Amino acid sequence: MKIGIADTTFARYDMGRAAIKEIRRVVSVEIERYTVPGIKDLPVAAKKLIEERGCDIVMALGMPGAAEKDKMCAHEASSGLISAQLMTNTHIIEVFVHEDEAPDEKTLGWLAEMRTVEHAQNVIRLLYYPDKMTRLAGTGQRQGYEDAGPIESGGSGSSH
Amino acid sequence: MKIGIADTTFARYDMGRAAIKEIRRVVSVEIERYTVPGIKDLPVAAKKLIEERGCDIVMALGMPGAAEKDKMCAHEASSGLISAQLMTNTHIIEVFVHEDEAPDEKTLGWLAEMRTVEHAQNVIRLLYYPDKMTRLAGTGQRQGYEDAGPIESGGSGSSH
Amino acid sequence: MKIGIADTTFARYDMGRAAIKEIRRVVSVEIERYTVPGIKDLPVAAKKLIEERGCDIVMALGMPGAAEKDKMCAHEASSGLISAQLMTNTHIIEVFVHEDEAPDEKTLGWLAEMRTVEHAQNVIRLLYYPDKMTRLAGTGQRQGYEDAGPIESGGSGSSH
Amino acid sequence: MKIGIADTTFARYDMGRAAIKEIRRVVSVEIERYTVPGIKDLPVAAKKLIEERGCDIVMALGMPGAAEKDKMCAHEASSGLISAQLMTNTHIIEVFVHEDEAPDEKTLGWLAEMRTVEHAQNVIRLLYYPDKMTRLAGTGQRQGYEDAGPIESGGSGSSH
Amino acid sequence: MKIGIADTTFARYDMGRAAIKEIRRVVSVEIERYTVPGIKDLPVAAKKLIEERGCDIVMALGMPGAAEKDKMCAHEASSGLISAQLMTNTHIIEVFVHEDEAPDEKTLGWLAEMRTVEHAQNVIRLLYYPDKMTRLAGTGQRQGYEDAGPIESGGSGSSH
Repeated sequence: MKIGIADTTFARYDMGRAAIKEIRRVVSVEIERYTVPGIKDLPVAAKKLIEERGCDIVMALGMPGAAEKDKMCAHEASSGLISAQLMTNTHIIEVFVHEDEAPDEKTLGWLAEMRTVEHAQNVIRLLYYPDKMTRLAGTGQRQGYEDAGPIESGGSGSSH
Repeated sequence: MKIGIADTTFARYDMGRAAIKEIRRVVSVEIERYTVPGIKDLPVAAKKLIEERGCDIVMALGMPGAAEKDKMCAHEASSGLISAQLMTNTHIIEVFVHEDEAPDEKTLGWLAEMRTVEHAQNVIRLLYYPDKMTRLAGTGQRQGYEDAGPIESGGSGSSH
Repeated sequence: MKIGIADTTFARYDMGRAAIKEIRRVVSVEIERYTVPGIKDLPVAAKKLIEERGCDIVMALGMPGAAEKDKMCAHEASSGLISAQLMTNTHIIEVFVHEDEAPDEKTLGWLAEMRTVEHAQNVIRLLYYPDKMTRLAGTGQRQGYEDAGPIESGGSGSSH
Repeated sequence: MKIGIADTTFARYDMGRAAIKEIRRVVSVEIERYTVPGIKDLPVAAKKLIEERGCDIVMALGMPGAAEKDKMCAHEASSGLISAQLMTNTHIIEVFVHEDEAPDEKTLGWLAEMRTVEHAQNVIRLLYYPDKMTRLAGTGQRQGYEDAGPIESGGSGSSH
Repeated sequence: MKIGIADTTFARYDMGRAAIKEIRRVVSVEIERYTVPGIKDLPVAAKKLIEERGCDIVMALGMPGAAEKDKMCAHEASSGLISAQLMTNTHIIEVFVHEDEAPDEKTLGWLAEMRTVEHAQNVIRLLYYPDKMTRLAGTGQRQGYEDAGPIESGGSGSSH
């Protein structure tokens, strides 16, 4: 098994290092890292990690800015990551932390670390323990900030 | 025949369980379940269910959040699901319940349950009874909330 | 020659019936009908009509709602229909009637009927009389509401 | 060499005729014309001109309306034209004139004529004189309205 | 090794020349230049540079206008460039300078020059020194304007 880590020089936090550290903490697996300038370079980097370097799953790490133009970049990158997955039948777990998701730099760094770590755990689950994923289905998991948790079951509760 | 169920840990209601329960209630068919972190992971999960696990149709279940960013995620996921269908010539029935579609958690749970159940019935119709679908053509069917119903025929009524 | 008709149970007017009636009125041709739940299911339905049931052209009929979310659905469906055409080198004529295009239900039904009928005529022209299409080039044709008509030629008229 | 002209019956100006006239004025080349109902039908028409009728380059001519919905149509058509180019490794020069680009019908007709003519010249340059294109690189060329022209070089001018 | 340079006649600054000059200053490598009318013509130009002229990496240089319509063009071009990369497993480094990114023409020219030069350095790193890219991961690199720089590490700093 081999896990690919695609990250950027644009990001203001070393999410690649955080991902590798968490993966190594939990499992013994080969890791390939590939750094590109920005998030729009991630789709082809992830696809190359899969097709040219034999990765079984990839994490695509990035930190889009807060401007309107940056949101469009993130949209283009996300769409490209989905296309790359469909072309390879391989998961690419997108870990994007938007600069406007945190009130200050300290929290932003914390969020980038936490979201990366929790998605690294998702990657390990998808690769080794798919049944653990299914046990978490519909439970309102979030990566970084607090989990939303499951809502109460309906079926009889609403008169709608 | 085999039906695939792709769902997420992000959702706050166990839509996967609801789908499986309804399908089993109506028909005897093999079911494959595949749980991923979020809705943007659904397109490749659905494609893998079709191409690697032999599913003849897939339900893609998810619960996008209410923020602007979540709506963009839903758009990206939906576009990916359409691409996955075109690449496989296989239906993937998208069942998304947006968090802002219901006024409170109870109704949201009820809506998630009902929409899943009614789309499970669509899946069964598409797979076994396509003629039943055609009998419902143009009748304003909705999944979850009340049907809109057919409108009055025109052709002579309007002087527009 | 075979014409495919893809329509939905979501639509509130039986556009599929209107299309078939108009086609049969004008030409003798084989028709395949395929009904799906909503407009996002139309791209793969159209592609299956072309690749699995041998249709030479397809009409994709739908009636998107008036909400913002419905407009996004229509955008995703339209993009998918264009992709399906490019993958098959075959025309899929999109006939969408947006619920907010008409002031009341009666006019909406009339519009759905008229737009379907006029696009059925386009389908017949594309299939049998491409020269008739070219004679209409640049003449401001509309389907349903009144034609916009051609504008006056420029080249000398403006001092811009 | 063969040039394809894809145009629409929706447009209110005969851009196809304008394109053919300008091409014939400058070079002796085979021309194939293909008229479709609207701009969303242009991508597959252009692809068919390339793959089924042997065109080496295509002009895709259209006139989107001024409403919000029309802008979305133009976006979908443009995206499809780019996909068609990538699938064929062949240029499709998009010539769209938006109805709200001109203050009145006369100017709109003038603009449709001029933009088509100037893009026909681009098509000829791309096909026969690529070096002429490169000599115009970075010079602020516009098609229809006045050229923007080159801006002054920087590198030393700004203290930013 | 061969580097492709795709640029436009629409741009108001000769970004192609700036890119070639910087590349030649640093390395000895074959360069192919391909000029097209506008940014929406860049995706197929870049793909042709890769598949027909043997380029190992491409720079796609453009200068979108400030209007809403221009932003949509940039979005379509960017999406196409990502698709072209996925179809070729080859990097295409997008260098777009939006006209509204600078307060005046002088600064705009300066920005176009600087962003092109800094991205030319990225291209060289990706091609020859991928390890140098990884050393810059997560350091907040920007092309043109000042680098944002890395933010302080979290993990313990926030009580969120």
